[in-house]
Amino acid sequence: MTGVPHRAKLKALDPVWRKEDRAEHIYRVAAEIMCRKGYEATSMNDIGDAVGLTKAGVYHYIRGKEYLLFEIMSYAMDMVDLDVVGPAREVADAEQRLRLILERHARRILEVGGAVTVLLDEMWALKPTHRRIIQSRKRAYFDLIRGTLQRLAAEGKLRDVSPTVATFGLLGILNWISRWYRRDGKVTPQTALRDLVSLGMNSVLRDGVKAPRRLPVVPAR
Amino acid sequence: MTGVPHRAKLKALDPVWRKEDRAEHIYRVAAEIMCRKGYEATSMNDIGDAVGLTKAGVYHYIRGKEYLLFEIMSYAMDMVDLDVVGPAREVADAEQRLRLILERHARRILEVGGAVTVLLDEMWALKPTHRRIIQSRKRAYFDLIRGTLQRLAAEGKLRDVSPTVATFGLLGILNWISRWYRRDGKVTPQTALRDLVSLGMNSVLRDGVKAPRRLPVVPAR
Repeated sequence: MTGVPHRAKLKALDPVWRKEDRAEHIYRVAAEIMCRKGYEATSMNDIGDAVGLTKAGVYHYIRGKEYLLFEIMSYAMDMVDLDVVGPAREVADAEQRLRLILERHARRILEVGGAVTVLLDEMWALKPTHRRIIQSRKRAYFDLIRGTLQRLAAEGKLRDVSPTVATFGLLGILNWISRWYRRDGKVTPQTALRDLVSLGMNSVLRDGVKAPRRLPVVPAR
Repeated sequence: MTGVPHRAKLKALDPVWRKEDRAEHIYRVAAEIMCRKGYEATSMNDIGDAVGLTKAGVYHYIRGKEYLLFEIMSYAMDMVDLDVVGPAREVADAEQRLRLILERHARRILEVGGAVTVLLDEMWALKPTHRRIIQSRKRAYFDLIRGTLQRLAAEGKLRDVSPTVATFGLLGILNWISRWYRRDGKVTPQTALRDLVSLGMNSVLRDGVKAPRRLPVVPAR
C-alpha cells in the first residue's frame, strides 16, 4: 500500500486523529469532497480545510492532487482485496463465492460510504503509469467475478447469459449503490443489503438451482 | 425543449450539419468531451474545436457551460420521455411494461452511446433552479419504474424485495452500461441487449411467473 509512509507521518500529528487511521480519514474526506465538487474543481485547499491542515500542511503530507487521487483509488482497491477478493478465494463453491462477493461488496459501500467508489471512475485524471496499475487491479476483480460465473455456467447453474455481460450487470447493481444510498434515508442498510444480494443472485442464477433465500451471516470485517 | 431557438439558428450554419440535428450533434460531442475530461476541465474552446466553431461562434450559439450542461441533461431526459416513458405508459400489463422500459433504456445507451447518461450524474454543477428541474424529471422516471414494480408486487409477481431497492438495482444495471460498453468491443449490441434485459427481468420477477424468455421485437425509434 503506497500510503504507508504518509500514514506514519500523520500518526504524530494530532491526538484526535489517533482514533481513526489518518490516511483513511484523509482519503475518505478528500474522496467525499471530490465526489461532490468533481475532481477537477477540488483544490488542495478544500481538502486541507476539511481535514484541518494548512495549505503548507497539506503539501507536507500529500504529494499532489493526482497522487492523492491515485492513493485514494489504491486504498479502495486494497479494501476490495482485503474485504472481498481474499475471503472469496477461500470459498470453493462458486455459488457461495458469488454470494460472498455480492454481500461483502455491497456491505462495504452501505457501511463505509461510496465516495471512493465514485472516484474509481475518474481514470482520465490519472497519469498513465498510475492508470495502468489501477486498471489492472480492477481487471483482476472483474476476472474473479467472471471466473465465478463461468464456473456456474459449467455447473449448469448460470442463466443463458454471457458471463461478461452478467459480470457488468452485477457490478452495475453494486457500484450504483453509492449513487443513491443515503444512510439517513428510508431504506435501512439491512434491507438494502438483503435485497441487493437477492437481486444480484437471482439475476444470474437459473430458477430452481438456488439455495434457500435467507443469507448466511457473513461477519463484517 | 429549451434548445429549440439555438437549434433554429444552427440550422443555417453549415450544410454538412443538415444531415444531423445540430443541437443533438453539439450536445453529444460536448457530452463526450465532458465525460472524458470531466465537466470542470472542459472549456468552451474544447467544445468549439470539436464541433468546428470559433470561440466567438460557441458563445454566439451557446449561452455558457452551465447552460450547456443543463441543455444536455434536458435533451437526455427528453429522449427518456420520448423513447421510454411515453411508450411505457401505453402498456397496461406491468410485466410487459417493465420489459419495454428495460429494453428501450438499454437499447438507447447501446445504440447512441452513454456519455449523456454519465453527465446526468453531474448534478452538483447545475445552478439550483436547473438542478430542481432535472431532479424532478429523474424522479418521474424513477416513479414510473417503481410504480410498475409495485403493481407487479400486487399481482404476486415481484420477488420478496423492496420496490425501491429493486428500482435502484435496475437503474444500476442500465446506467452502468455507459461505463463499460464499447461499440468496438467483443460483446455485440444484440447480445448485450438480450442479456441485460434478461438480467433485469430475472432479478425482480419471481421464478415461474415469467413469460417466455424470447423478447418481443420492440422497434427502435
